Amino acid sequence: EYNPHRDLPTPHQSIYAKRGMSLEDEINHSNQYYLANHIAVIHKKPTPIQLVKVDYPKRSAAVIKEAYFRRPSTTDYNGVYKGYYIDFDAKETRNKRSFPLKNFHPHQINHMRECIKQGGICFAFIKFTELDLIYLLPATILFNFWDQQESGGRKSIPLATIAKNGYQIGYRLNPRLPYLDAVDQIIANKK
Amino acid sequence: EYNPHRDLPTPHQSIYAKRGMSLEDEINHSNQYYLANHIAVIHKKPTPIQLVKVDYPKRSAAVIKEAYFRRPSTTDYNGVYKGYYIDFDAKETRNKRSFPLKNFHPHQINHMRECIKQGGICFAFIKFTELDLIYLLPATILFNFWDQQESGGRKSIPLATIAKNGYQIGYRLNPRLPYLDAVDQIIANKK
Ligand SMILES: [Mg+2]
Ligand SMILES: [Mg+2]
Repeated sequence: EYNPHRDLPTPHQSIYAKRGMSLEDEINHSNQYYLANHIAVIHKKPTPIQLVKVDYPKRSAAVIKEAYFRRPSTTDYNGVYKGYYIDFDAKETRNKRSFPLKNFHPHQINHMRECIKQGGICFAFIKFTELDLIYLLPATILFNFWDQQESGGRKSIPLATIAKNGYQIGYRLNPRLPYLDAVDQIIANKK
Repeated sequence: EYNPHRDLPTPHQSIYAKRGMSLEDEINHSNQYYLANHIAVIHKKPTPIQLVKVDYPKRSAAVIKEAYFRRPSTTDYNGVYKGYYIDFDAKETRNKRSFPLKNFHPHQINHMRECIKQGGICFAFIKFTELDLIYLLPATILFNFWDQQESGGRKSIPLATIAKNGYQIGYRLNPRLPYLDAVDQIIANKK
């Protein structure tokens, strides 16, 4: 069975409450800003659930009595910006030197490959929580390391590689994470 | 509270079992075909759930013990095709003469308006189940009727209007609903 502890949105009363927002919360807030200002429409997808038992009481809302978390078959976020399809996943690591590739599932990598074939813009949003550093890493870099790993290469991406090939996202007031500035650069590089 | 009976994916043992696939099943199958053949990446979003009680037993999967269906804040489907962001909702009606606008929630209409502003392609997938007729209706037509309704106009879109301004989707073997042919025409009209 799928263990959601690592991947699922963390309830607010969790460990994250102590040290502020999770990366996903920060992205969600930024997306709300972008949406309210008609800059982009990007949403987090709901977590897929396997329903087992649902009660339908008369005169009140259906109650799910037994269900399980399913592993998502795609990435967490997608949407549209300046005519481009945007698709990404957000990952946090406590590592200080590199990002472990095991944070990605093979189907997420495959999903991003297919999206790129269709002209979409795909990336990983990576937060080094202990360093408080956030990067947007284009999926093509991620694919290179993923493929190397499968032929016996290293199982993580060095922070130095991410810093060199990715875009650092600094905090701002609004949006908290102005990541579409980095997407603008990816778009400019496409042309 | 949100009543999911009308909108949620229908379990296979439901009324739909008697008369074959639901429209969503047919779209999902078509999307699988498109994905497997690298033609497009379009997925149905999971139904959002409000978690109330989750058990985390040791050594086994988390069990959701109490949860409720939430009303989705966007449409059901989105993805990427030929570089375009695609976004739509699937709706069935048993009416024979018109499509009732109450099948849409205001936030779904707003969501599609925002996506179109960003250059996305949005539409409604409408099935007249009693007539076995399926149409893809561009969102702009839907908006026209939606806005008229709000200023006292009719509360449904006549089938004749849908037939004239939409694209009829006929069944085929594979994909079952070749709706990207209609999207190709929408793309051609954009240029
Ligand atoms: Mg994630
Ligand atoms: Mg629907």
